[in-house]
Amino acid sequence: MSQIEAFNTYRSRMNDRILGSDSKIIKRMYNLDTNTYKAGALDVKTKELLGLVASMVLRCDDCIKYHILSAHEAGASEAELIETFEVASLVGGTIVIPHMRRAFEFMDEVLEK
Amino acid sequence: MSQIEAFNTYRSRMNDRILGSDSKIIKRMYNLDTNTYKAGALDVKTKELLGLVASMVLRCDDCIKYHILSAHEAGASEAELIETFEVASLVGGTIVIPHMRRAFEFMDEVLEK
Amino acid sequence: MSQIEAFNTYRSRMNDRILGSDSKIIKRMYNLDTNTYKAGALDVKTKELLGLVASMVLRCDDCIKYHILSAHEAGASEAELIETFEVASLVGGTIVIPHMRRAFEFMDEVLEK
Amino acid sequence: MSQIEAFNTYRSRMNDRILGSDSKIIKRMYNLDTNTYKAGALDVKTKELLGLVASMVLRCDDCIKYHILSAHEAGASEAELIETFEVASLVGGTIVIPHMRRAFEFMDEVLEK
Amino acid sequence: MSQIEAFNTYRSRMNDRILGSDSKIIKRMYNLDTNTYKAGALDVKTKELLGLVASMVLRCDDCIKYHILSAHEAGASEAELIETFEVASLVGGTIVIPHMRRAFEFMDEVLEK
Amino acid sequence: MSQIEAFNTYRSRMNDRILGSDSKIIKRMYNLDTNTYKAGALDVKTKELLGLVASMVLRCDDCIKYHILSAHEAGASEAELIETFEVASLVGGTIVIPHMRRAFEFMDEVLEK
Repeated sequence: MSQIEAFNTYRSRMNDRILGSDSKIIKRMYNLDTNTYKAGALDVKTKELLGLVASMVLRCDDCIKYHILSAHEAGASEAELIETFEVASLVGGTIVIPHMRRAFEFMDEVLEK
Repeated sequence: MSQIEAFNTYRSRMNDRILGSDSKIIKRMYNLDTNTYKAGALDVKTKELLGLVASMVLRCDDCIKYHILSAHEAGASEAELIETFEVASLVGGTIVIPHMRRAFEFMDEVLEK
Repeated sequence: MSQIEAFNTYRSRMNDRILGSDSKIIKRMYNLDTNTYKAGALDVKTKELLGLVASMVLRCDDCIKYHILSAHEAGASEAELIETFEVASLVGGTIVIPHMRRAFEFMDEVLEK
Repeated sequence: MSQIEAFNTYRSRMNDRILGSDSKIIKRMYNLDTNTYKAGALDVKTKELLGLVASMVLRCDDCIKYHILSAHEAGASEAELIETFEVASLVGGTIVIPHMRRAFEFMDEVLEK
Repeated sequence: MSQIEAFNTYRSRMNDRILGSDSKIIKRMYNLDTNTYKAGALDVKTKELLGLVASMVLRCDDCIKYHILSAHEAGASEAELIETFEVASLVGGTIVIPHMRRAFEFMDEVLEK
Repeated sequence: MSQIEAFNTYRSRMNDRILGSDSKIIKRMYNLDTNTYKAGALDVKTKELLGLVASMVLRCDDCIKYHILSAHEAGASEAELIETFEVASLVGGTIVIPHMRRAFEFMDEVLEK
């Protein structure tokens, strides 16, 4: 199974479990999550890159994967993704580098390189 | 091997290794850890939920597993665990969500759902 | 001006400014914040202590002040607040101690000690 | 003295002190910092917003001020800044809100509102 | 009042308050803190520099001040302190820089430059 | 495959990929990384222990592995590594303990215990 498939399968299965619980709070948080990345003064691609850089400096591998996928779907190029990685590793320091290695690997699968 | 077993086995093996070293500092830290969660003005269940929410916002999967197990042993219900997850994901943001997915999965094993 | 007054005045003024902007996302986040701490399987006091310990390990002084005030209003005693500080400084380490100093000072003002 | 002036004055004075020391490492880090935000595949405004959202989720008030100033100079509008705040508070959670209050206050001074 | 005086006065006053409470957990944590920095396989100066770099990447200004004072007392030179700052800003990224500005300012007072 | 081999193989492969991209920023960051740990006022062993403790409190397992390897090559003994773990777990709290478990396991492989 590819990394993309593995990521999406687990994410779907557990989101179903979570949204199937009684928690209105978590449902509303998921909803807010969807709405925050909709086009406004900033377009979707820019917002997804904002989500990506935030995920990288907070060093959350699953969040990084999610935003690489969404930014790519919103039209972000390899060069734009890499410049986002640059800002993340500058602001967050070398502690971000192991996450950047995994981000490059996942990006290459997304871009079918 | 179940997730609970895998978690407990590795944890026990490495704790033996660590406590078998000469480090008095680490031994005392382990000791302090045990004492902090004993009943006082707050009962054990509440203290374990405090440990759980702290582990979630700091995004430490092993710590989350540990406190799910201990909170369950101290009598925390599924609804109480989920409300603790709610506070964690509100305070800590969507960056906590991937950890919450794994927390739900582990909780379901603990609750034998 | 007391610390409590200074905290409440600035918080009110800026919340008015923020909620007066066009951001539906932020309004909904504030709303979600309010709802998360309502009584459910866990009572309000416990939820406020969860918010407090999360704020302490994430080392956010304003959040700590807010949850000391709310936990106190919800009936948390000095002993319960201090046990929450204990969990925070154990889980979060000595890096939490400077925040705990300010938390004690603010708590004493809240308790009029 | 305005907040902008106070920020710039202290920043300049201490940067002079730091760059006046013998540290080649720090000089090169400052240099890298400047180069990372230059236009490439992404324009300067987008890069500054990336720097801003990263600073907000890492909760560094001085970094937030710096990127509000630079994003504004690069043409970011109030609406674009606020949408960046939205992403930050969603990803980073309510722990970001006290920093967002100060960010709004500083932004208003920058926009002379 | 100098920064050193202000730091020491507040720290002493609040430590007295905290240690005057009933919390055995916090007393033992303070004790552990003292013991961890005693000479062992590593000398005191090295341990204080370890405490300093940890405080810088976790971005705790009060902790940074404390370890600058203690490292200086243990014989750390200006060059050694600055090289510790270098490691911190590399590992922790540009987000550390505002804290490094305040660290230089405090160090200069300690070194009476 | 041993943990050391697995770590080195993946790290080399992805570093080749990253340095083979057009990013001058990342190349310069890698370069800065190398230069920061060269002997200066502090020797290489001390600098590697600084990198290790910073990696532990920031809880980056790959960074911890890297610095255990480099500190060992620079002559750090088991006792010195363990005292560095002590400072990390004191400053960073019990949240560091799961990472310390993995650090002990990796150290034992490095020391061929």
